[in-house]
Amino acid sequence: MKFLNKLADLTPLQDEVFNMQQEVNQAINKFGKESVYNGTIGTLFDEDGNFVTLKSVYEIYDNLLDSQKAKYAALIEGNPTYLDAIKKWILNEVDFKLANKAIATIGGTGAISLSVSTCLDKGDTLIIPSLSWNNYKLIASRHGLELKNYQLFDNDNFNLNSFKEVCKEVLVKNKKVAVIINDPLHNPTGYSMSLEEWKEVINIINDLSKLGEIILINDIAYIDYTKKPLKSREYLTLFNNLNENALLVIAFSCSKTLTAYGLRLGAALIANQNQKLIDDLYLELTKHARSTWSNVPFGAMELFTKVTSSDYLENYLKEKQTFIDLLEKRGHTFKKECKNYLIPLYPHTGGFFITIKVSNEKKELIHQKLKENNIFLLKVNDGIRVGLCGLNIKKCKELPTLINKVLQENNLKFE
Amino acid sequence: MKFLNKLADLTPLQDEVFNMQQEVNQAINKFGKESVYNGTIGTLFDEDGNFVTLKSVYEIYDNLLDSQKAKYAALIEGNPTYLDAIKKWILNEVDFKLANKAIATIGGTGAISLSVSTCLDKGDTLIIPSLSWNNYKLIASRHGLELKNYQLFDNDNFNLNSFKEVCKEVLVKNKKVAVIINDPLHNPTGYSMSLEEWKEVINIINDLSKLGEIILINDIAYIDYTKKPLKSREYLTLFNNLNENALLVIAFSCSKTLTAYGLRLGAALIANQNQKLIDDLYLELTKHARSTWSNVPFGAMELFTKVTSSDYLENYLKEKQTFIDLLEKRGHTFKKECKNYLIPLYPHTGGFFITIKVSNEKKELIHQKLKENNIFLLKVNDGIRVGLCGLNIKKCKELPTLINKVLQENNLKFE
Repeated sequence: MKFLNKLADLTPLQDEVFNMQQEVNQAINKFGKESVYNGTIGTLFDEDGNFVTLKSVYEIYDNLLDSQKAKYAALIEGNPTYLDAIKKWILNEVDFKLANKAIATIGGTGAISLSVSTCLDKGDTLIIPSLSWNNYKLIASRHGLELKNYQLFDNDNFNLNSFKEVCKEVLVKNKKVAVIINDPLHNPTGYSMSLEEWKEVINIINDLSKLGEIILINDIAYIDYTKKPLKSREYLTLFNNLNENALLVIAFSCSKTLTAYGLRLGAALIANQNQKLIDDLYLELTKHARSTWSNVPFGAMELFTKVTSSDYLENYLKEKQTFIDLLEKRGHTFKKECKNYLIPLYPHTGGFFITIKVSNEKKELIHQKLKENNIFLLKVNDGIRVGLCGLNIKKCKELPTLINKVLQENNLKFE
Repeated sequence: MKFLNKLADLTPLQDEVFNMQQEVNQAINKFGKESVYNGTIGTLFDEDGNFVTLKSVYEIYDNLLDSQKAKYAALIEGNPTYLDAIKKWILNEVDFKLANKAIATIGGTGAISLSVSTCLDKGDTLIIPSLSWNNYKLIASRHGLELKNYQLFDNDNFNLNSFKEVCKEVLVKNKKVAVIINDPLHNPTGYSMSLEEWKEVINIINDLSKLGEIILINDIAYIDYTKKPLKSREYLTLFNNLNENALLVIAFSCSKTLTAYGLRLGAALIANQNQKLIDDLYLELTKHARSTWSNVPFGAMELFTKVTSSDYLENYLKEKQTFIDLLEKRGHTFKKECKNYLIPLYPHTGGFFITIKVSNEKKELIHQKLKENNIFLLKVNDGIRVGLCGLNIKKCKELPTLINKVLQENNLKFE
């Protein structure tokens, strides 16, 4: 194809969240806000349907000096104060023993794409969960990577066996693999792995690392909406046991943590037993950042540093907790009603999303029929995602009844 | 190398602007601001040494709603209002006839890296001017590209012959080439090509395009600091004559235009005779953006749209013009003094920078000796860049005398 490189395939951008917004808006204009159930979005709305911007965050941002918004980052890697704050924030009270460094990125997407760009060659394999954020697939294809899935669930537990088998298969063939675990509060299900499951994952990785290099990308975009964000970091201590042939990349995003999706700030924390490996990798990550986006927003870095500093932290945590509690109520309400109608759900522990189990054969039709009834949800692999973050408690209560009605009227089943 | 892909070479990041800041700060702490000549930086400072943030810009930014800063972009491509504003801003009164589309990017770096990532394969060649922004080289190496230079100058004119020969050589071999022209107000010299030179460049490209595909990347990061920003866009009409085998990418940055370096906003405007080609390319650019940084800062896009709207434009242009005039005075002052000491300069028409002609053999030593005398400048190929943007008129007047003194004392010559 003229002017395009070999990665070009001209397949349309499958980005339902962004694309469906137009359909939703049309429905709202026609039928009114109250009659439209918009479960497509991935940002937080309050009970009155207002987009949430945490006051404890934006009071600080609005009071930064203009020069703090205007300046280039102090370093390509990020402002040193931000990098300190990020490490403290992610690791918190965890007794983390691996050699590690953090680099500022453009959002959580940037943390993942930067590590993939720096570690993987065309033809390498990226393994992702069978249910996952759509963009992982695009990241793989835009890097010319092979894509493989591990089955996320074995009944209602993390599928350790599938994780092991798929990683092993690739390692035997390629001697190198990158694998993404999106936990806690997995998107789209809201599942969080148990400490036991994480222990087993690390055992598997250590065992398999005799076969080759394993890059474990732990996407923690939703970690700060776990019921107890501090306790939810406990599993990070388990990484101390990772052996030298396994590289850990923790991909962090400020988007949800600060309700600052549009400020485009994130970080990648890389960790390994070997300091020299980390130093080398860090240099290459830095060069790749410089050649891709040059540096990240100064003001957003200052914001994060300040919000998480001792003067402001308590106020922020308190405000954020009200929304964690709210999301819990929404999830609880939705799940309770689903039980009444035997609507099958994937395991869910909290957070922005929950996912209905729907076979891929039935998915298109059900999704379409729901849309015709002003219920806008997101198709995922073997499921339909419900964005609790965008639906108030009233709608969370009504939605299962309405979904059930649509299925009954159209003589449809989920499986 | 463990965990790293084949692009890794562990060469240190050659980023003098960011790296030298520390040395400058040490000197300022030791000798005081007045005694230190910091000509390394690439951002605008006023006569009192204060970092410039245009009031007409930040008054608007500070009054955006929090939700406008917090939201994800309306589309991966950018907010539609921003894309309209950008096209209007770049093309202005130009009667531009090529099919074209604009995509929002993370800064000007993002505009260049995005187009390179989408158009070029590993092993393809990127041609850049012999004197250029350092980051072009890193962009090439991080994409596994061959790098070639055209000689920028033939005496004090754009070197049409070298441009032609280098492009031709690559096209004969590869049937495809990308070439960067950083104009107007080329970094590091401050040179702007004449209309006649641009006419010839386009003739050359059309002529060579019979040999293969040519991607012309026109980096216009400094266009809004030309003496007459509107008039400086006249050359864009000449692109109407580009034939279908030539793709135009205009890489725009808001960094200097808005004194908003840290907001990380830019755009790539792609143009060609063929609408279908543009549509296909646009899709691939969009997918690459989604997989790299997902989307760009909402607030910054709203800011640009508002600043350049009819209600605010005049106020902004007026304020910016005072700094264009100031830079002209600084350049004039510096050049006049250089003449007295026969300090050889590359041709310069205005803007943030000016460059002293220094042979690569002499460069290291001269640069070192200047540093020892608290004169911090930036090494470039066959030259040393002076950042007029960071030096007040007084220092612009004093600097040539001091440089001359250092050379005399050390018995050094520029060539």
